[in-house]
Amino acid sequence: MILVSDNLQVTNPVVSKAMAALDPQPVCDIVRQCLERGAQAIDINSGPLGKGSSDKMAFLVETVQEMTDAPLLLDTANPLAMEAGLTVSKKPVIINGFSLEPVKMARILPLAKKHDADIIGYLLNTDSSVPLNADERLNIASRIIQAIEKEGISPDRLIIDPVLVPLTWQQGPYQAMEVLTTLKMLPELFGFPVRSIVGLSNLTSGANSLKKRMFMEGVYLPMLSAAHLTLVLMNIFHPETVAIAQACKMLKQNSIFSWESV
Amino acid sequence: MILVSDNLQVTNPVVSKAMAALDPQPVCDIVRQCLERGAQAIDINSGPLGKGSSDKMAFLVETVQEMTDAPLLLDTANPLAMEAGLTVSKKPVIINGFSLEPVKMARILPLAKKHDADIIGYLLNTDSSVPLNADERLNIASRIIQAIEKEGISPDRLIIDPVLVPLTWQQGPYQAMEVLTTLKMLPELFGFPVRSIVGLSNLTSGANSLKKRMFMEGVYLPMLSAAHLTLVLMNIFHPETVAIAQACKMLKQNSIFSWESV
Repeated sequence: MILVSDNLQVTNPVVSKAMAALDPQPVCDIVRQCLERGAQAIDINSGPLGKGSSDKMAFLVETVQEMTDAPLLLDTANPLAMEAGLTVSKKPVIINGFSLEPVKMARILPLAKKHDADIIGYLLNTDSSVPLNADERLNIASRIIQAIEKEGISPDRLIIDPVLVPLTWQQGPYQAMEVLTTLKMLPELFGFPVRSIVGLSNLTSGANSLKKRMFMEGVYLPMLSAAHLTLVLMNIFHPETVAIAQACKMLKQNSIFSWESV
Repeated sequence: MILVSDNLQVTNPVVSKAMAALDPQPVCDIVRQCLERGAQAIDINSGPLGKGSSDKMAFLVETVQEMTDAPLLLDTANPLAMEAGLTVSKKPVIINGFSLEPVKMARILPLAKKHDADIIGYLLNTDSSVPLNADERLNIASRIIQAIEKEGISPDRLIIDPVLVPLTWQQGPYQAMEVLTTLKMLPELFGFPVRSIVGLSNLTSGANSLKKRMFMEGVYLPMLSAAHLTLVLMNIFHPETVAIAQACKMLKQNSIFSWESV
C-alpha cells in the first residue's frame, strides 16, 4: 500500500494564496512535511480552477517536482489545467482522474495516451452520481475497461477508484463495505491485479472531532489493506492513521516481525 | 462479530486459586467485569487440569451460568472435564474444541452429538502442528467436515478456528494473512456461511508492551471483521481493542451512522 498525501489542495488557504501569488515557498513547506510524515506520492489538487488555471497547475507541478522524485497525481477536473501539468512534468505522472462522464471521456481520457501517463478511473455513473453497490461499481468498471481499450490505452495504465463516500451519507457504512467487495472482485473482472486507489478522508468527512476521524480511518484502513488496495490517498498529517498504515504494511510484507519496529 | 472474553483462564492466578478452593466469588468478579466491558460470550478455559479436573470444570460452569445467559465456551483438552462441564450446563454451550488429533477425534468430537452442542474445529494437523498456509488449512477443513458428518453431527454445529499464531513466529505476518484468506474461502468450501472463531490474543503473544499489543490487535481485528469472522476470542480488558471491535460492528451493520456514537 502506497501512501499518497491529499494535503496539497486548493481548499487549504495557504495553498490557494501561494497559487494566486505563484509563490513556491509555502508549497515547498507543505510538500516537505508530507514527505517527512511518510507520503510516498503527492496528490496535487488544484481544484476546478478558473482564470489562469493552466499556469497555476504548471506552477504547482514545477514546484513539487523540483523537491522530490515521488510520483505526482494531477488532480483537477479542468482539462486545460491537466494538460498544462502533464506538459511541464519531467517524469511519468498519474492523471487523477476520469470517469464515464462524457466531458471526462472526451477531454481527460485522451491525455493519458498523448502524455503516456497512468490514469485513475472513478467508478461513478455517467451523471457523476455514486453507484449504489458493488455490482453497479463492477458494471461501471467493465465500461471503463472498454473505454480505455477503445482509446488505445493499455489496461495496466489504469488505476481504479471505487469511490468511497462519507459514513454519514445514506447507507454510508454499507457503501464502505461495498467498496471493499469491489476491491476484492476487481482482479477477477480484469483478469490481472489491477491497481486501485481510495480517498480515505472521504469516509470521515463531516466528523465532529479529529480524534474520532483518525479512529474511524484507523478501523477502515486495515480493511482496505486486506482487500489489497494499492494506493491510499489520505491526510498524511493524521499521525495515528499513518502509524496504522505502516503497521498494515508490516503485516502484508512477508518478513520477520519485531515488536521493536512497532 | 461476537466478542468472546478469554479472561476466565487458569493461567490467571486468581482463577486457579478460586478453582482450587471452589470459591465462586473471584470467578463472579471476573465474569461481571467481562460482561461490563462488552463480552457477549464467555470462554471458560480450565486448562489441561489434573486431579479433580471434572469437579473444577463443573464448578466453573455452574458458577458462570448462574450469573449470565451469555453463551459459554468450554475450553479444555481434557475429555472428562469437558463432559463434566457439558453435563452441568443448563443451556447449549460450545465445545472448544477438537482437531484431527486422534485423541480429540475419539474423545471430544463425540461429545458434541451426545450433548447437542456446537463444536469448534481447529485447523491443525493430526500431530497438532500449525499448517503452513491457507491451502493446508482448507485441506484440513475438508477433513474436519468429513469427520463430523461421519459422527452424525450437522455441519452447521461446527465453528472453524483457522489458528492464528504469534506475529513473532517464523512467517508470523504471512500466517496472519493466510488466516484471512482461509476465512474468506471457508463459505465456498462449505457451501454455506460456516461460523468462525479466532483467538486474537495469540497474535500479540510475547509483545513487550500492552500499548503495542493493543495497537497490533487493533490493526488486525478490522481485517478479521472484513473477512466476516463470526466470533472473536479476545482479552476483553483491552479497551482499545474493544472500541475497535465495536466500530467494526458499526461499519458492518447496515444502519445509519452517527459520529455521536463513536
